[in-house]
Amino acid sequence: MAARFNKPGHKIVDHYTYVILGDGCNMEGVASEAVSLAGHLKLGKLIALYDSNHISIDGSTDLAFTEDVGKRYEAYGWHVLHVPDGDTNLEAIAQALAEAKAVVDKPSLLVITTTIGYGSPKKAGSEKVHGAPLGGDEVTATRQNLNWAYDPFVVPEDALAHFRKAIARGAEAETAWNATFAGYQAAYPAEAAEFERVMAGRLPENWEAALQPVTEMEKSTRLLSEACLNALAGVLPEFLGGSADLAHSNMTFLKGLPEFQASSYEGRNFRFGVREHGMGAILNGMALHGGLLPYGATFLVFADYMKAAIRLSALSQVGVIYVMTHDSIVLGEDGPTHQPIETIASLRATPDVLVNRPADAKETVAAYAVAIAERKRPSVLCFTRQGVKNLPGTSVAGAKQGGYVVVPAENPDLILIATGSELELATKAAAILTEEGKAVRVVSMPCWELFEDQPAAYREEVLPASCRKRVAVEAGTTFGWHKYVGSEGAVIGIDRFGASAPGPICYEKFGFTVDNVVATARQVLG
Amino acid sequence: MAARFNKPGHKIVDHYTYVILGDGCNMEGVASEAVSLAGHLKLGKLIALYDSNHISIDGSTDLAFTEDVGKRYEAYGWHVLHVPDGDTNLEAIAQALAEAKAVVDKPSLLVITTTIGYGSPKKAGSEKVHGAPLGGDEVTATRQNLNWAYDPFVVPEDALAHFRKAIARGAEAETAWNATFAGYQAAYPAEAAEFERVMAGRLPENWEAALQPVTEMEKSTRLLSEACLNALAGVLPEFLGGSADLAHSNMTFLKGLPEFQASSYEGRNFRFGVREHGMGAILNGMALHGGLLPYGATFLVFADYMKAAIRLSALSQVGVIYVMTHDSIVLGEDGPTHQPIETIASLRATPDVLVNRPADAKETVAAYAVAIAERKRPSVLCFTRQGVKNLPGTSVAGAKQGGYVVVPAENPDLILIATGSELELATKAAAILTEEGKAVRVVSMPCWELFEDQPAAYREEVLPASCRKRVAVEAGTTFGWHKYVGSEGAVIGIDRFGASAPGPICYEKFGFTVDNVVATARQVLG
Repeated sequence: MAARFNKPGHKIVDHYTYVILGDGCNMEGVASEAVSLAGHLKLGKLIALYDSNHISIDGSTDLAFTEDVGKRYEAYGWHVLHVPDGDTNLEAIAQALAEAKAVVDKPSLLVITTTIGYGSPKKAGSEKVHGAPLGGDEVTATRQNLNWAYDPFVVPEDALAHFRKAIARGAEAETAWNATFAGYQAAYPAEAAEFERVMAGRLPENWEAALQPVTEMEKSTRLLSEACLNALAGVLPEFLGGSADLAHSNMTFLKGLPEFQASSYEGRNFRFGVREHGMGAILNGMALHGGLLPYGATFLVFADYMKAAIRLSALSQVGVIYVMTHDSIVLGEDGPTHQPIETIASLRATPDVLVNRPADAKETVAAYAVAIAERKRPSVLCFTRQGVKNLPGTSVAGAKQGGYVVVPAENPDLILIATGSELELATKAAAILTEEGKAVRVVSMPCWELFEDQPAAYREEVLPASCRKRVAVEAGTTFGWHKYVGSEGAVIGIDRFGASAPGPICYEKFGFTVDNVVATARQVLG
Repeated sequence: MAARFNKPGHKIVDHYTYVILGDGCNMEGVASEAVSLAGHLKLGKLIALYDSNHISIDGSTDLAFTEDVGKRYEAYGWHVLHVPDGDTNLEAIAQALAEAKAVVDKPSLLVITTTIGYGSPKKAGSEKVHGAPLGGDEVTATRQNLNWAYDPFVVPEDALAHFRKAIARGAEAETAWNATFAGYQAAYPAEAAEFERVMAGRLPENWEAALQPVTEMEKSTRLLSEACLNALAGVLPEFLGGSADLAHSNMTFLKGLPEFQASSYEGRNFRFGVREHGMGAILNGMALHGGLLPYGATFLVFADYMKAAIRLSALSQVGVIYVMTHDSIVLGEDGPTHQPIETIASLRATPDVLVNRPADAKETVAAYAVAIAERKRPSVLCFTRQGVKNLPGTSVAGAKQGGYVVVPAENPDLILIATGSELELATKAAAILTEEGKAVRVVSMPCWELFEDQPAAYREEVLPASCRKRVAVEAGTTFGWHKYVGSEGAVIGIDRFGASAPGPICYEKFGFTVDNVVATARQVLG
């Protein structure tokens, strides 16, 4: 933000990011990933205060955590400071913060040695105060020990006065920043308006038009995704992101734009390294900061590594965009470790996540249009490795409703429901069955959540209760699909781990063929 | 294994564990977790060979990974060695391995600097050889460059002779070990038989009887789980494990047994630290080693952190046991970040994972009995924080079938299906509806996968197709349940994130009451 907006003599972005973390945080792998990348990027404005009390829930850190954390952070390229008496020495902490700020080319870790439950005679320094209250007697003993003479909920006057100093200090800081911004506005009115726009999370007029040319294309949805990303990058300067070391597979590079590196913070192409969970956490932080519209990418199956971050996107109500390619067994040779089976189902089961699996160019455009416009729910966009046809019946407007009729049939005998690459199979199967005299409707259902957002009348129109003969086709687990196919329907999916073989062979051997869709439909029709 | 079986003068367990890893591995958080714990545990027999070629899929590690890996490992307490010329200097690698073995109280990392695609004139040292073949011309150029005069698939005589030396060397080692073991057998026949038993993965006679007393108990299923774990520990010396810093919440401590620490490798209580993904990976390694039957524990919602490891348990066909407590919103105050919603569904969607959510003591015993006996599929056992009743209709034998009738009704008007803590609600609702003259059957379905393993006739007997009025109750997402309730049924679940409040209040506010089950059933009955 500073690299983009600040001008000589006008520093409107100039703040620090503080992290407060404990022993448990330093044991979690996601922290290692983020910390390593922060060191690489020389994030001098990142300051972490490590409350090192040597206690986690089970007891002393001697049980499981005896590494030298400071040395580890130094190995990551951080500036490390120690405050040995963090219980009482506020001056030492303030001094360390000043030293941290003085080092501008490295993030800083303050290892602050503290006592958990400081002041409690019986429980200080023990896991007993980690998650449970002290209890009445120990509260009394702690008050005595700390010479705290006040009754519960009494705030002493001098403490109140001290805290209230923050009001004036905050007002001053705000006034100063407002003056800075006013100067910026006068000198750079367009940039100031843009700054206000992105900080408010408003999209520019007519941004969606940039996606229009993509609707005509015909290639794999990951390449269509690349076209969308690059089209959006042109009209949304706040749009930025990257891949967890799979840029050339995920097709996520914003062409002609610099990388985000220590020497180029204006860059918009992020290199997250092989750090999926860290990437997800960083995307959440960027989105919560404001002024940025971030995306991150990896293979769909590796959503597992960062599921906790995707869940937090949803819980935190931020519209992070997850670009997930290689979305089925058709990725082929990499085999079962890389082939998603349950991945899409487990993301659909998660509240407030838009899981979108477009079938072609028009639906890919719709997926991005929704993901960009939706700023409260994260989107997981699932793209193929293999090429797909741009199908006649699809539409941007239809796909935006999550589910819609692609091949119409009044009073259908059968409804075929499909997503992504399987929509083509469904339309071909429908053509064969129609020739046999059946009234077969095809419904594309790229995003269940958007479909469920629609009024009941619309959903009934697309999937009328009167037609119970239904077949769903998706190259993933059948889990969850019975909601739409009901008791009399069938699901063509894959409920076992995949196999290593060329993609088209996997596809055929696991039953994703027009013939199998037709045969299953005939069975359901009875 | 060495601490358990070796005797003075009889070293039957005496091998090293080697890891080969690359730059990408060192970026992943799971490696940080495992490496930190290995350092803490002073695993002197663990030797990691780090193929440091400074290339990952996207290009040079300069893009995203510039930390000092060796220094980081030293911070974890590892012994770190450098081999600067790993392309050709085999003697230096052998020498480093010897040095690694000489340090017995630390795991060793050999940082071996190499060139990816060594020998290829145009592609050596570049990401172009990471995942793609060299191509015909470059293969020819590489052969020339390396003075490799042989045709494709020709193995030169001297290379063959060199490799074949391994046959004699291996035979010698085997003969030596067999002699050692014969001596052990003569001196310690019982221990030798026990060693052979655990290495073959055979369970002792009558082990399941140890669980019998638990069937009479009445408390939270996490406490019932504790009783099972401790009962099993008494009869299965190979059974061991621990928690990711939640031993007192997960109730997983094996009482009276020592901890597994650097000073007590005979211990069976593991302290994994706040390292869920690392824990899962370590459990897989232990299970694949053989001779051990490992379990690991955390809160159910944190399955997200180690989902990739659970998936690998299934793919690797190892019966790792995941003990997951606090299995619903009823955990209460910790709130939405700790309350599983989609967790059970996403594990059920994963192939070859037994997800078991027992309702009471008998079903908890069944869950453990199956998890122990099943050595090819991992089990995820889901336990309550809150107390549960030991219900009259439940049985160990029934629960082992995954789904079974708990409250019978011939030709039922309605079937209520429930798992875990909600089974009590279902039985109470059934009693009320029965009084109203309805024939209501209650089916307990603790483990879908075991139910699906049963013959079709049994499944039809439990859930007859003729009865389409069905209501499922589970304190988690409704996702997936339509498979069993069909088009005319209903699911009582929770399809949003939870809330922070005392457990019973969460339970009631989200509709998990007998009244709501009865009302929903009446609606379904029409």
